[in-house]
Amino acid sequence: MPRYALKIEYNGFKFYGWQKQKELPTIQGELIKALKKIDATCVTISGAGRTDAGVHATGQVAHLDTVKYWDPERLSEAINFHLKPLPIAVLKAVLVDENWNSRFDAINREYVFRIIYRRAPVTFEKELVWQIKHKLDINLLREAASYLVGTHDFTTFRSSICQAKSPIKTVNSVDILEIKIPHGVEYHFTFKARSYLHNQIRSFVGTLEKVGAGSWQPLDIKYALEKRSRSESGPVCPPHGLYLSKVTYPSDLFCL
Amino acid sequence: MPRYALKIEYNGFKFYGWQKQKELPTIQGELIKALKKIDATCVTISGAGRTDAGVHATGQVAHLDTVKYWDPERLSEAINFHLKPLPIAVLKAVLVDENWNSRFDAINREYVFRIIYRRAPVTFEKELVWQIKHKLDINLLREAASYLVGTHDFTTFRSSICQAKSPIKTVNSVDILEIKIPHGVEYHFTFKARSYLHNQIRSFVGTLEKVGAGSWQPLDIKYALEKRSRSESGPVCPPHGLYLSKVTYPSDLFCL
Repeated sequence: MPRYALKIEYNGFKFYGWQKQKELPTIQGELIKALKKIDATCVTISGAGRTDAGVHATGQVAHLDTVKYWDPERLSEAINFHLKPLPIAVLKAVLVDENWNSRFDAINREYVFRIIYRRAPVTFEKELVWQIKHKLDINLLREAASYLVGTHDFTTFRSSICQAKSPIKTVNSVDILEIKIPHGVEYHFTFKARSYLHNQIRSFVGTLEKVGAGSWQPLDIKYALEKRSRSESGPVCPPHGLYLSKVTYPSDLFCL
Repeated sequence: MPRYALKIEYNGFKFYGWQKQKELPTIQGELIKALKKIDATCVTISGAGRTDAGVHATGQVAHLDTVKYWDPERLSEAINFHLKPLPIAVLKAVLVDENWNSRFDAINREYVFRIIYRRAPVTFEKELVWQIKHKLDINLLREAASYLVGTHDFTTFRSSICQAKSPIKTVNSVDILEIKIPHGVEYHFTFKARSYLHNQIRSFVGTLEKVGAGSWQPLDIKYALEKRSRSESGPVCPPHGLYLSKVTYPSDLFCL
């Protein structure tokens, strides 16, 4: 059976995450519904990252098998047609090897988190950013983030329901930008790692925010990490500022 | 009575325009409701531009009178509190002279129109742009737009229900940018004029789109303008790509 890789974008605000659930709307569930309309035998689609409820994607990658061969562009248009009017879109489809796997072949996953500082309520991007009412100190943020880079036991920043076998992960980089916007500032965090523990990024951002606001010192993050205890983490921040932005494979799959 | 000028932002997608209507939700109507909660005598608010149903603003300006003196920052926060959770926000408030008028004192109104070309459906900005499925030629767009600049009888680009006394207006500038975005292109139009006829910008953009797509020649816009006939206009484009972005006064009111 031919296998296709899809690059997928979605506004996850109104969905209960990526993974299919019986009664609740999810991204995978809606994609399966759309796929069944174009190929009744196409019963599943596997994603590179299981985004949580409320989390968005600009570069989720998934694979699926079909009975007949499709021109990849026709396939993405057919899926998009049946997804309407949901805020989920296939950006590109490519034919891949039948053993290719969106999850296991991924060598890097990039997540972006957007915080906006502004006094006035956010109007256009309400579901798309975490709004805070105070400025953050970018130098403190960057120093604190530097302690999270590398291979560590991340038990402190791991949800109690995390199913990963080991709490040891390697964070390749954390980059933070401070962007002036009208009447405020956007803090734009980019995380790169092969894989993550459950709630790892939201625990990172919730804790980094405490540092940026001045209630934690940058070194407190290092100490919290070293304690390897969930109770040492800062709060888990809201999901709706988080985006799965890029999944990288050994070959440049989507030629972008 | 003290008079305040407000700079206001709103996502107009779900509203029936700026102007108060009896049964329908409008921006002015919602602002009046919020104002009544903080000052029962505050019965109206006057805007610099009457945006149509579905049109947004990032820089609408309005004025209102209150009985007591307010610290301007406290005033904007009180209004924002009572506007929640609507996508309307006061960005800034300033105390102005009691004869100052948001509408009559304005010397320039800037509107932005956003068109996005992308094959895949837009997900995050669905209510905020006009999506088209073909590229536009930026050079043809710019040539065509140049014929709209200056003082002209704009009858061709005027709605039949327009109440302006004269069809003669002066367009100061039309600037068009072509911005590469992931998987597509954004065409960003900026219009500057003291005032406009009803539907003038949406008639401009609907007609310019025909030129960019190649079905009209740039000179066709010039001929259509010269004919001074509504039937010579191209289509009126959808409202939800349009933003009232800036209103200018003789003094830099909001110090921005």
